[in-house]
Amino acid sequence: MNVIKVSARSRTAAVAGAVAGVMREANRAEVQAIGAGAVNQGLKAIIIAKGYLAEEGVDIICTPSFVEVEIDGQERTAIRVLVEPRPQ
Amino acid sequence: MNVIKVSARSRTAAVAGAVAGVMREANRAEVQAIGAGAVNQGLKAIIIAKGYLAEEGVDIICTPSFVEVEIDGQERTAIRVLVEPRPQ
Repeated sequence: MNVIKVSARSRTAAVAGAVAGVMREANRAEVQAIGAGAVNQGLKAIIIAKGYLAEEGVDIICTPSFVEVEIDGQERTAIRVLVEPRPQ
Repeated sequence: MNVIKVSARSRTAAVAGAVAGVMREANRAEVQAIGAGAVNQGLKAIIIAKGYLAEEGVDIICTPSFVEVEIDGQERTAIRVLVEPRPQ
């Protein structure tokens, strides 16, 4: 649920808006990317979303992990970054 | 201090070892990367280091940010990821 899939061509501002929106609704968000270009766009978007949420008083932290996903019948390793409010 | 600089050609296992080593010594580490390939290697290394440190009972979190750095007289935007133990 709420996994935001990012590609190398994703616009960082759009992804950042999605991350901030999901955080506001669900208090956690997951960003998933496969490949260097996508991982870079995803992380940049999280930094931008961190700025948006900081303005609302929410300080976020990230927990990255590898996940295996199947795409077109092929097993691929994605990076998934869990975004959460910083534990108090 | 303790900024681990990662390039697109950095070996993830070597960077992961550095991150885990700095965490053990200083209880925080910073990983800096410029460009998609470097950011990808850095994040993969952090995930691997997270596994190493989890075996020692240390659960880590990440806080990414943009930082401006000067390289060969040129201003570049790097991504820096602060690694810390998860606040209890």
